[in-house]
Amino acid sequence: MPSPQLAVIGGGQLARMMQQAAIGLGIRVRLLAEAPDVSAAQVIPDHVVGDYTDIDTLRAVVADAPVVTFDHEHVPPEHLQALEAEGHACRPGPHALLYAQDKGDMRKRLGALGVPCPRNAAIATRQELESFGFPSVVKTTRGGYDGKGVWVVRSAADADEAFASGRSLLAEELVDFRRELAALVARSPSGEVRAYPVVESRQADGVCAEVIAPAPDLDPELDAEARAMAERIATELDVTGILAVELFETTDGRLLVNELAMRPHNTGHWSIDGAVTSQFENHLRAVLDLPLGATDARAPWSVMVNILGGAVEDLEAQRAVVLAAEPDVKIHLYGKSVKAGRRVGHVTAYGPDLDDVLNRARRAAALFTNGVTHD
Amino acid sequence: MPSPQLAVIGGGQLARMMQQAAIGLGIRVRLLAEAPDVSAAQVIPDHVVGDYTDIDTLRAVVADAPVVTFDHEHVPPEHLQALEAEGHACRPGPHALLYAQDKGDMRKRLGALGVPCPRNAAIATRQELESFGFPSVVKTTRGGYDGKGVWVVRSAADADEAFASGRSLLAEELVDFRRELAALVARSPSGEVRAYPVVESRQADGVCAEVIAPAPDLDPELDAEARAMAERIATELDVTGILAVELFETTDGRLLVNELAMRPHNTGHWSIDGAVTSQFENHLRAVLDLPLGATDARAPWSVMVNILGGAVEDLEAQRAVVLAAEPDVKIHLYGKSVKAGRRVGHVTAYGPDLDDVLNRARRAAALFTNGVTHD
Repeated sequence: MPSPQLAVIGGGQLARMMQQAAIGLGIRVRLLAEAPDVSAAQVIPDHVVGDYTDIDTLRAVVADAPVVTFDHEHVPPEHLQALEAEGHACRPGPHALLYAQDKGDMRKRLGALGVPCPRNAAIATRQELESFGFPSVVKTTRGGYDGKGVWVVRSAADADEAFASGRSLLAEELVDFRRELAALVARSPSGEVRAYPVVESRQADGVCAEVIAPAPDLDPELDAEARAMAERIATELDVTGILAVELFETTDGRLLVNELAMRPHNTGHWSIDGAVTSQFENHLRAVLDLPLGATDARAPWSVMVNILGGAVEDLEAQRAVVLAAEPDVKIHLYGKSVKAGRRVGHVTAYGPDLDDVLNRARRAAALFTNGVTHD
Repeated sequence: MPSPQLAVIGGGQLARMMQQAAIGLGIRVRLLAEAPDVSAAQVIPDHVVGDYTDIDTLRAVVADAPVVTFDHEHVPPEHLQALEAEGHACRPGPHALLYAQDKGDMRKRLGALGVPCPRNAAIATRQELESFGFPSVVKTTRGGYDGKGVWVVRSAADADEAFASGRSLLAEELVDFRRELAALVARSPSGEVRAYPVVESRQADGVCAEVIAPAPDLDPELDAEARAMAERIATELDVTGILAVELFETTDGRLLVNELAMRPHNTGHWSIDGAVTSQFENHLRAVLDLPLGATDARAPWSVMVNILGGAVEDLEAQRAVVLAAEPDVKIHLYGKSVKAGRRVGHVTAYGPDLDDVLNRARRAAALFTNGVTHD
């Protein structure tokens, strides 16, 4: 088999959707998959099954690939440094990924850059948490996602589980926010940056449930500020590929950075069907240092709703039901088995009327999750 | 590996682009590829390398797949009948595919249906050709494509090569046409039919060079007639999947059927980027008897230009040049090695101004083919 142009570490749905874009661009991908038949391994013939924490496995995967990118942020930084020393371009590089891997380092760095963040402090003891004050949010600095490793605390006792974890902790003010936004940018090693329209992200149980592009009724100044902030962070941190900046829009009209992700992000999935260039295509173009594509929306409104595992066990059989009800919603199934609450796909609707678009996407996702629409 | 929902016979670019759509829909595909590393085998892990004229190879590929579809029309009809007898649904079925495989049978059937075709006759001898008259077009009834197996003849001597081929021949009047059009429909076994906008197809050296969607300045009556004709042919011939009807628009304003294809077609490639539901997605939805998606265009104009093999040998390296010049043209490379005149990819541009869209797509394709734009 010819040498790949790109190695992708991690076989989840992000790698799967990268492959859809790679097919069009004619980019040969080699994948490191966690297990046989994971989401991306189903659609990338050139894959190795192995452990991304093992340096020799990583070396075997990237052997003849000039560039390496990622489905997730969990590859140990020392391994990335080793790969870079051996001549492989890691994009994003370990010096950037650090700030997506460690929330403590991210807060310090953004603070130094003057980027508005919730008030925060590293805490090692209950006393330090007491000094920080309540109510607040306690997070593990590493490894948390989708609401895991995050505790809202109103007293030191609420932080028992956090302290029991034995992990490095961060306290942050409990932000009084109106809604959550996300600003995505693509940035190439040459320094080209393109910002996507700022979106609104709606959570349920700590997990992103739906995304509206663009964020409805967003103040034009906040919109410009969010894009500029994401562009500046990408540039200052030397991010390559997609950077997603999750933001709080506070009740008093300010923006505060919540989280950073350095890969295609759930808040950008709408772009596959809704933008001129999807976040997956621009991620590939960015990491291969190709000129980037336009990030403009193709429709006035796009809405992405996640399909979570629920009562419906056979998503393939359910496809006919969903398409009969909503033939023009775009379906994206990840080839994953259904488990309660697991993200197994998403749907996107677009069009000129937000209510209509929102209802269509919600109905389709509900039919996939529970088999009923709750109409 | 879990059982596939669909077997695809033939590993060319059509199967490759089907896979892009299959990834989104969560359809597991098994491929029969002609050779290792052909276009679609690069992106479909579950593939068998073998000969589609060998019934045992076909049986092995479709073993646990309920439905079979095709990248080309060359599988022997008796093999398709055998697979159907063994419980696999061939879509389209051999009774329909016959009319895409044999131009003589196609002409007879369309004639019986009263569908307007060029005047035609089966010819076995030079005398029969003389009786038919000149100038005319002589075609082999089977196996011709892209101008191969087609001769424009002004005397019996011009048909020497045709008669020397030893193949069954058809004579057709040389149509005085204004331009070539194509009407594509998707049809499911349940009988649902959806017609795409009628497009104009421009040829160079007998090969489709560029496609404009919709066909500029098409008389609304001809537009409706072309769609109705394609819908009727699909229904009468019981086609499942995409049917492409290639048409002549004559200088005196009539439509005549030129060719039929029963698979996604070059004249429908624009739909990947330019329509709500691509021909590849609707082909998959049709052959799996899922409800079909809207065929509407998403932009006022879409133009597809084929990338033919030319002076540029390294298409991957050329990608950066093309994207720098035309960042918002959508690139589709087929993973094929470059040979002179070989179709190795296509580009699509879309937007509100036809001249701009046409120029952008042509420039990008020319940069891929020859490295220069001839501007």
